[in-house]
Amino acid sequence: VLGIYEEVRRGLGVGEGGEVDIQPAEKPESIRFIQDKIEGRRLSAPEIKSIVVDVIENRLSDVELASFVTALKIRGLSMDEVEAFTRAMVETGEVIAWEEERVFDKHSIGGVPGDKTTLLVVPILASAGLLIPKTSSRAITSPAGTADRVEVLCPVDLTIDEIREVVRETRGCMVWGGALELAPADDLFINVEYPLSIDPLLLPSIMSKKKAIGSTHVLIDIPMGTQAKVKTLEEAHALARDFIELGRRLNIHVECAVTYGEQPIGYAVGPALEACEALEALMGRGPIDLREKATNLAGVLLEMAGIEDGKAMATHLVEGGEAEGKLREIISAQGGDPEVMPEDIEIGEKCEVITSDQRGRVVAISNSAVAHIAREAGAPKDKGAGVLLKVKLGDEVSEGEPLFEIYAERAWKMEAAVSLAESLRPIRLSRRVEERMLIERFPKRFPPKEPFLLER
Amino acid sequence: VLGIYEEVRRGLGVGEGGEVDIQPAEKPESIRFIQDKIEGRRLSAPEIKSIVVDVIENRLSDVELASFVTALKIRGLSMDEVEAFTRAMVETGEVIAWEEERVFDKHSIGGVPGDKTTLLVVPILASAGLLIPKTSSRAITSPAGTADRVEVLCPVDLTIDEIREVVRETRGCMVWGGALELAPADDLFINVEYPLSIDPLLLPSIMSKKKAIGSTHVLIDIPMGTQAKVKTLEEAHALARDFIELGRRLNIHVECAVTYGEQPIGYAVGPALEACEALEALMGRGPIDLREKATNLAGVLLEMAGIEDGKAMATHLVEGGEAEGKLREIISAQGGDPEVMPEDIEIGEKCEVITSDQRGRVVAISNSAVAHIAREAGAPKDKGAGVLLKVKLGDEVSEGEPLFEIYAERAWKMEAAVSLAESLRPIRLSRRVEERMLIERFPKRFPPKEPFLLER
Repeated sequence: VLGIYEEVRRGLGVGEGGEVDIQPAEKPESIRFIQDKIEGRRLSAPEIKSIVVDVIENRLSDVELASFVTALKIRGLSMDEVEAFTRAMVETGEVIAWEEERVFDKHSIGGVPGDKTTLLVVPILASAGLLIPKTSSRAITSPAGTADRVEVLCPVDLTIDEIREVVRETRGCMVWGGALELAPADDLFINVEYPLSIDPLLLPSIMSKKKAIGSTHVLIDIPMGTQAKVKTLEEAHALARDFIELGRRLNIHVECAVTYGEQPIGYAVGPALEACEALEALMGRGPIDLREKATNLAGVLLEMAGIEDGKAMATHLVEGGEAEGKLREIISAQGGDPEVMPEDIEIGEKCEVITSDQRGRVVAISNSAVAHIAREAGAPKDKGAGVLLKVKLGDEVSEGEPLFEIYAERAWKMEAAVSLAESLRPIRLSRRVEERMLIERFPKRFPPKEPFLLER
Repeated sequence: VLGIYEEVRRGLGVGEGGEVDIQPAEKPESIRFIQDKIEGRRLSAPEIKSIVVDVIENRLSDVELASFVTALKIRGLSMDEVEAFTRAMVETGEVIAWEEERVFDKHSIGGVPGDKTTLLVVPILASAGLLIPKTSSRAITSPAGTADRVEVLCPVDLTIDEIREVVRETRGCMVWGGALELAPADDLFINVEYPLSIDPLLLPSIMSKKKAIGSTHVLIDIPMGTQAKVKTLEEAHALARDFIELGRRLNIHVECAVTYGEQPIGYAVGPALEACEALEALMGRGPIDLREKATNLAGVLLEMAGIEDGKAMATHLVEGGEAEGKLREIISAQGGDPEVMPEDIEIGEKCEVITSDQRGRVVAISNSAVAHIAREAGAPKDKGAGVLLKVKLGDEVSEGEPLFEIYAERAWKMEAAVSLAESLRPIRLSRRVEERMLIERFPKRFPPKEPFLLER
């Protein structure tokens, strides 16, 4: 006897006790293309499309998908393959169209904790009159994603219609992209990439979301540093060239900014601590490196819109309070309290101070150790959990002075975070280091004449 | 509230309503070695051991395992890695020791349907007085594995103690190795290799089982042909060298036989049809190629035991009825009917004859098409299902003459098999081809002086 769901029965038009013919499902054809990729063959656009369709329709198992992304990681992708993946991911999901000619976006490839720059860049751009409907992800491996930070201030899980309404009203938004079905294949690939810590589909992943949300002008932030995803300027250039070329093929104007990624951005790491710091920064009180990075990136975007000396304009919009006002408008439009003040934001009740056992200058802050400690304390799920640095690279410290504070909502998580902090010791002391946020803008103001290389 | 199993509660020594401390499991260290392999690094023996232990203890997900075997397939394994895998697989399972100095075994790397040679080789060797405790697998992708064929004649799922008893009594056995926990890691790797149709762990897979069952003298059968796993003599030589070198490292005397794999062995494909044909062959009535292949392989094994002109002795043991008598002894010891006659074996009730629509000579028989049709008819699960060829390569056929028969136990499976047969047309007619079963024995009687290459 075979039991089937009522909906299936009606769909098949079978009566109760009726006969149905069952046949085992054929293996999808895309399995063959996966085997081809294992063998090192380049895949054609229709082959890639058929893989992505099978992923969307759940016809490929995790075993097959994991094998595929591993083969992609080892064999690499040509720019034609990258383009085909991006298009296939866009075509198998929702697409949002806007009635304006220019739609702006900003994306960081990640890897540096405490990077709440988006919370400043979106209000700066929107207050300058540019359209910037920003969708973000929640944290996967990090202590906080942009969506986690914004959620401290207002709801982020809006529908497409609600997003349109917010953007119509304020020219910007900061929402969670996860439920919007923009390039949903990407989310399924990430499911197998994450446990393996590999991301051969980084470019299609980012750019398919940008294309689906209708962006026309995109700035990609590439944090660089010994502990960031990108270690050298050469790697950053190769990646930037690929982003720009892929943008050209998709009819998106892409620029890239290589930024300083040797330490966390600002002092706060964890959703509530970071939302607090971002709000302070727009109120003119935040840390210098965060303001620097945000006005640099916003400046590049303003110049992409044809405005001269974008950095000066961005700084002006922060100092004049326009950006803060715009943030409060967006918070209100998304359903949060526009009057929120930094001291209203709830931080974890438990707090432990980690102090220095020697004097000296801070010469290294481990990004991964800080992130790990913040996660151990409960971030991103416990919004009030995280790490608040008391020093940054180059600072002078006496013996017994605080290096950082750990915040947590539960005692046992605090215990675990403190013991992790003691074993990881994320801050190293010795001699002074330079501080410089924007390392390079790519392409430079006058782009080089020679064509970009098509293959990575 | 947290629910735990009663056994877990007792194991932890917690009362009902008691408190337990839960911590998320750490990622196993072997994940890092998998990432190393993706990057192309050679793994050390302790690293490989740690991966195999984590596989056995279920600490690696299918996603991680699939990624790992894909990386192995693309990056390749050095002979040191192959050896380490084999040893780790042996060490993480049961091992059987025998009180005799020499324990013989025979293994085919597979790929040719209808290869029931083992059902002849084991009785020939045991009747010559050699010890040959043979374990086999069931079919995964093929219409019948050795265990499926033998199961038509007698039970095959014996315990280790029962195997010892059968071997003590008859000097041979033919049992299913699946439940014996010999190199169980291998079975877990196969779970992810199979859906991907890749087998980077072929050598460790086979040789770990041989080492675990205590074999000292092993003959590896490498069927070669355009449709077999191994296409050319060069490939066969490379594989043979690896098997021999791995054997040397494991203290197993390995020889290899490259055999003709351009068409099915004998005429029968499917468990019952094949058991029937094997029995007939030992009774002096079977197809010439099956008798040839079995006496050739048994001959090599007899010579490995120091007997001169093994092929002649093997033929003598078949013709004199000693091998048949031994088969019946083994059937009886394993719990089957020793008096069984070919006509007693139940074949599927439904039969369809596929005839030729032209005259000519048979120039090609597709191994994969024959296997596919037999599986569609129900093999290996329906033991009576399969394909019975009426012609082999080189045979002359008139129009309307039978090419093959399909047997099935259920009407709908027969229907599917016939329609598949009509679309695949597995037999191609035209001009005469040579018939030659043993293409080469490797190494030749006098092995070459130069050392074997260590790397593939």
